[in-house]
Amino acid sequence: MTTEADWVAVDWGTSNLRAWGIGPGGDVVFSRMSDQGMSRLTPDAYPRVLGGLLAGDFAPTGPRIDVLICGMAGARQGWMEAPYLETPADLGALAAGAVAPAMPEARLSPRILPGMCQRLVGAEDVMRGEETQLLGLGTLWPGFSGVVCMPGTHSKWVQLAGRRVQRFATAMTGELFEVLRTHSVLRHSLGGQMQGPNRDEGFSAGLAAGIGAPQKLPVALFKVRAGSLLSGRTPDWCAGFLSGLLIGSEIGAQRDWIGEGEIAVVGDAGLGDLYAKGLGVAGGKARIVDGAEATLAGLKAARQQG
Amino acid sequence: MTTEADWVAVDWGTSNLRAWGIGPGGDVVFSRMSDQGMSRLTPDAYPRVLGGLLAGDFAPTGPRIDVLICGMAGARQGWMEAPYLETPADLGALAAGAVAPAMPEARLSPRILPGMCQRLVGAEDVMRGEETQLLGLGTLWPGFSGVVCMPGTHSKWVQLAGRRVQRFATAMTGELFEVLRTHSVLRHSLGGQMQGPNRDEGFSAGLAAGIGAPQKLPVALFKVRAGSLLSGRTPDWCAGFLSGLLIGSEIGAQRDWIGEGEIAVVGDAGLGDLYAKGLGVAGGKARIVDGAEATLAGLKAARQQG
Repeated sequence: MTTEADWVAVDWGTSNLRAWGIGPGGDVVFSRMSDQGMSRLTPDAYPRVLGGLLAGDFAPTGPRIDVLICGMAGARQGWMEAPYLETPADLGALAAGAVAPAMPEARLSPRILPGMCQRLVGAEDVMRGEETQLLGLGTLWPGFSGVVCMPGTHSKWVQLAGRRVQRFATAMTGELFEVLRTHSVLRHSLGGQMQGPNRDEGFSAGLAAGIGAPQKLPVALFKVRAGSLLSGRTPDWCAGFLSGLLIGSEIGAQRDWIGEGEIAVVGDAGLGDLYAKGLGVAGGKARIVDGAEATLAGLKAARQQG
Repeated sequence: MTTEADWVAVDWGTSNLRAWGIGPGGDVVFSRMSDQGMSRLTPDAYPRVLGGLLAGDFAPTGPRIDVLICGMAGARQGWMEAPYLETPADLGALAAGAVAPAMPEARLSPRILPGMCQRLVGAEDVMRGEETQLLGLGTLWPGFSGVVCMPGTHSKWVQLAGRRVQRFATAMTGELFEVLRTHSVLRHSLGGQMQGPNRDEGFSAGLAAGIGAPQKLPVALFKVRAGSLLSGRTPDWCAGFLSGLLIGSEIGAQRDWIGEGEIAVVGDAGLGDLYAKGLGVAGGKARIVDGAEATLAGLKAARQQG
């Protein structure tokens, strides 16, 4: 067994849960993954899941171990609600807004960081987890101010001035892709095949259509179906087109946020590349920051806050 | 038993099937409904379904009975493919494009009308069923030329000059509503409740948002979730907002089609009213034409073509 970690950083999302044991020097001494995301759990299940995930990493007795958690575990339907910070918000106040759910008979001492909300009328919005990545961005890209694009199931666009979140917006792009490819008539054109030699060409065509005329999305979606029925478009081309169209429409929707400054794209490498390409088509400059690294850096920074 | 019908008009869609027996004077002498739509059937099942639906309406022997069919029965994955007419297309050519699937050992003599396609690059599109309603519109609204809006699962917008279809476009609005309310995170905000005292207010708010900024659709969708989490929006309000947002975005997407002339809204009364309201907000004038009447009038007119 390795040296015990000093504390544990946890990203507890809707679908998954990831934990990193952090050693005395700030290095990761272990990492754990689980599919026990918020959507599968009732509040009383969290202590058991967390305890089980870390059972082999700590001796049964000893001093309490801090576990700092971000993400959906703090939602109303999660473990324990961590009330939102409101925009404009200071990321330096994250740790002060944490809540501490009970975890009796264990060495683990969990705290859950708050999410962030925006109550501006007509721009009401919420996030949970990305606020921690934004804090981490300050470590990974010191001095960054500007627009952050965080692609995913629910993409976030954020205007950040140092550690101050000025405003943000959520686009349901990833989820639109999933529900359309799984449940709509377009599934017949994709045929369950997501990769292939024509995927890139389809993606580029969809991207151009979405960025060029984002207001046409409800009509452009059906071009996937028409493309396979009339033009012999292959399933991989159609999958690429749908992905490009949705990402392009999102970027087109947010075009008024894209200025001269470099845009921080925080996400996994694959999706980050697609967004960087789209931002380039829209005239923006993008730099990709790994999403998991941003989360971990954010949890470390939040722990420094106390 | 009533007098035998002269012939049978059939609208065979994806989900349902509707048949009308037409008497010598053009009057409807019976009507039948079934849930045996195209999506449930393999090609060899159609004769049995049609025969079963009309079994009680005709004596087992006698002269052959014409059955004129429009809709998805003519799709590649339907009973027998009826090749598309191509835009610009003359609705007077519908009957000439019909195909006659075999139906041995029966008095019924079926023909399936063609759909319509548009091969214009970047505006590829298809319809099956609506072309027949467009032909019927010529009977129900003699002399009509202009824009036709046909709300539904896959809404159609058509530019019609008399009997000539100049161009058309499909918006996936109805299907987007279904997949989002059933499968996306927004289902938590709708809670399965589609009606209620706040539905109209939500619909108006969504309509204004969609028409005012159709390019914002990917971002505006999440306002449903944020509205319930932050502003205490009720499920019926959220359902209305989602419906209004999607219809408004569709109308906003098609705004360049809306001119001075009256727009023919062909659909059922409930959906037609919602679209007429939206078209009014966008500065258009709408007149509602019942969709089933248009189908029946179109099948009658197609039979006159031979």
